[in-house]
Amino acid sequence: MTDTKAPDAGRRSERSRRAIYEAALALVAEEGYTRTTIEGIAARAGVGKQTIYRWWPSKSAVLLEAFLDLAEQAAAGEREIPDTGDLATDLKLVLRATVDEMNSPAYDGPARALAAEGVIDPVLGARFVEKLLDPQLELYATRLRSAEEAGQVRAGTDLRIALELLVGPLTHRWLLRTLPLTHAYADTVVDYALNGLAPRG
Amino acid sequence: MTDTKAPDAGRRSERSRRAIYEAALALVAEEGYTRTTIEGIAARAGVGKQTIYRWWPSKSAVLLEAFLDLAEQAAAGEREIPDTGDLATDLKLVLRATVDEMNSPAYDGPARALAAEGVIDPVLGARFVEKLLDPQLELYATRLRSAEEAGQVRAGTDLRIALELLVGPLTHRWLLRTLPLTHAYADTVVDYALNGLAPRG
Repeated sequence: MTDTKAPDAGRRSERSRRAIYEAALALVAEEGYTRTTIEGIAARAGVGKQTIYRWWPSKSAVLLEAFLDLAEQAAAGEREIPDTGDLATDLKLVLRATVDEMNSPAYDGPARALAAEGVIDPVLGARFVEKLLDPQLELYATRLRSAEEAGQVRAGTDLRIALELLVGPLTHRWLLRTLPLTHAYADTVVDYALNGLAPRG
Repeated sequence: MTDTKAPDAGRRSERSRRAIYEAALALVAEEGYTRTTIEGIAARAGVGKQTIYRWWPSKSAVLLEAFLDLAEQAAAGEREIPDTGDLATDLKLVLRATVDEMNSPAYDGPARALAAEGVIDPVLGARFVEKLLDPQLELYATRLRSAEEAGQVRAGTDLRIALELLVGPLTHRWLLRTLPLTHAYADTVVDYALNGLAPRG
């Protein structure tokens, strides 16, 4: 009996975990972070409150993990920025994908809620940066390092600041909703960052 | 009698208005936007609730105006980006001042609370952009246009996207609190944006 029960329990756990993630993301997108509660997540996921507390210490822990899980699914194996040898093409590909993600309601809702909460709450903000943002930014640093070695980025460039010239404008437009985020915009940001605003001699 | 009463009433109004602005900014910095109420602002400013409702239709209207007033005082007459003829020097001056502002608690608290609320609430966000952000960004556009005419910015550059390469990285670092905002950082952002990341021939 226990031999057949164990895999069932595992499947049930996995199903519950996924239901909890989905409920958490939906609630934070619909209600905002502040009004999302462990009780609400449990009710929507069809699990007991205790199931959630057994696995996570707090609401922000559930949400951050739900979001990490979403990001992992979205990435679907392609965790690296491609390296075709053509830096501009590779960066445009990844910035266009970022634009698509920012324009997708399934991502925008929870990501926006989590980012806004991180803007206010330094503890959540630090976890958001450490767990979610920094690993993404590191992919840019890796690609830029390879470009530097190939002579496509000026030697001695501070690659951390360099990558902020790429992601900073997109994040500004996304979070503050100033103007539409399009592929053409992503392409122009890459061209300007690589070639500079000043005329080349 | 009424001749002498009118200026007194004007002075009292101006005093009340300033007390309301200060109370609103202090409360939103200390308590956050959500927990700041008209009642709380009135109590802290030492005025009746009706005084506030007579002048402003909503909490967000008070806060946005308080913030506009703060921004105006901070600017203290120097609303333009200087034009010495040297674009890099002028941009470094203004980005360094922006860094100082972002690092100042009196600005950071309310600006961060208002920005975070705008991230979540599209209506407040749109007013924040229209009333506060766009007029500031227009100053960059003006300076870059003059630089384009002087041949220091490539002809035909989309100046709106160009300015986002300057303010985007600073805003990213400020809102997401990734790394320290320093004058050296501001200088490097300007150098990279003007000269580009790719080597110059």
